[in-house]
Amino acid sequence: MKELEDRIRRDGTIKPGNVLKVDAFLNHQCDVALFDAMGAHWAQLFAGRQIDKILTIEASGIGIACVAARHFGNVPVVFAKKTQSINLDGDQYVSSIYSFTKQREYPVIVAKRFLQAGEHVLLIDDFLAKGNALHGLIDICKHAGVIVEGIGIAIEKGFQEGGSKLRKEGYDVKSLAIVEKMDADTGNIEFATTD
Amino acid sequence: MKELEDRIRRDGTIKPGNVLKVDAFLNHQCDVALFDAMGAHWAQLFAGRQIDKILTIEASGIGIACVAARHFGNVPVVFAKKTQSINLDGDQYVSSIYSFTKQREYPVIVAKRFLQAGEHVLLIDDFLAKGNALHGLIDICKHAGVIVEGIGIAIEKGFQEGGSKLRKEGYDVKSLAIVEKMDADTGNIEFATTD
Repeated sequence: MKELEDRIRRDGTIKPGNVLKVDAFLNHQCDVALFDAMGAHWAQLFAGRQIDKILTIEASGIGIACVAARHFGNVPVVFAKKTQSINLDGDQYVSSIYSFTKQREYPVIVAKRFLQAGEHVLLIDDFLAKGNALHGLIDICKHAGVIVEGIGIAIEKGFQEGGSKLRKEGYDVKSLAIVEKMDADTGNIEFATTD
Repeated sequence: MKELEDRIRRDGTIKPGNVLKVDAFLNHQCDVALFDAMGAHWAQLFAGRQIDKILTIEASGIGIACVAARHFGNVPVVFAKKTQSINLDGDQYVSSIYSFTKQREYPVIVAKRFLQAGEHVLLIDDFLAKGNALHGLIDICKHAGVIVEGIGIAIEKGFQEGGSKLRKEGYDVKSLAIVEKMDADTGNIEFATTD
């Protein structure tokens, strides 16, 4: 998606350790017009699929998923939580994932009543690198008996294994921008061709 | 806002200890069509105000704020973070708040470059009870020199002091539903009149 690639080139920052900072428009400050265009693009890419619900994970996925949902007939968006709270009661699906950005293990929690067996869900997240967060969500989907109809990612780090692993497992992963190479010294960034 | 009140009556659950669970449509599963109607309503209530940016706090505020932003000319949405991460570098505004639902103290963090002195911001959050989270955001706004043009709340617990304190301090708080009384035994809920 050219608009997203252009934006990453313009406002993204590459940091040592393969860190791509896009907090100016994606995951701290949010450009909602861009989110809307992303939603429209995913809707084209997943056209003809049955999508009953969008599943994402707090926090950065929420805004993108909620804005994108408009392009999928305003289906409900469920966001997995990363901490227990007294607001979370009743039966839950719980998985566990390791975050490299937070540098710790944390739970992924979804209340059972918000995933009904047989529902078709679209997973949405801001980043795909090693794929840990997505595997946590997929694990929950398996336990719930819901069908993962597709996975919509804003930015995939193509040089890490998450995307290729998921595609090998048979998931239909549509990343709007796939970073092939990036260089913290020169600021240079190369994208793979995407749909 | 009648649509929100009706929804709270239908899908909300009152728990002992003045807990109102609205996770079926507001803060775990999200009804984005309802969020859109809420955004349109806030846009009416704050008509004529200069809103350069919306500021909210992770996680439950993000979806509501991002969908609502469409009704404010797609202004940027900034969400305050509650945990440090290697993605958060550079100068930050940090405040500290106590959460009764999480039962612990946590930081509220906004990167300095996303709040420019003189900007007019609208604060949006899902709940207002004691007002701790909002006071954390307001504290950050004061340090940043931004003008809090208004505060849009989905559900205010009118029997707790947060709303009246903020209004006494001069803030223009617009809550779409104000719960006056609720009874965990009978499930009965009474709303105050709102704009």
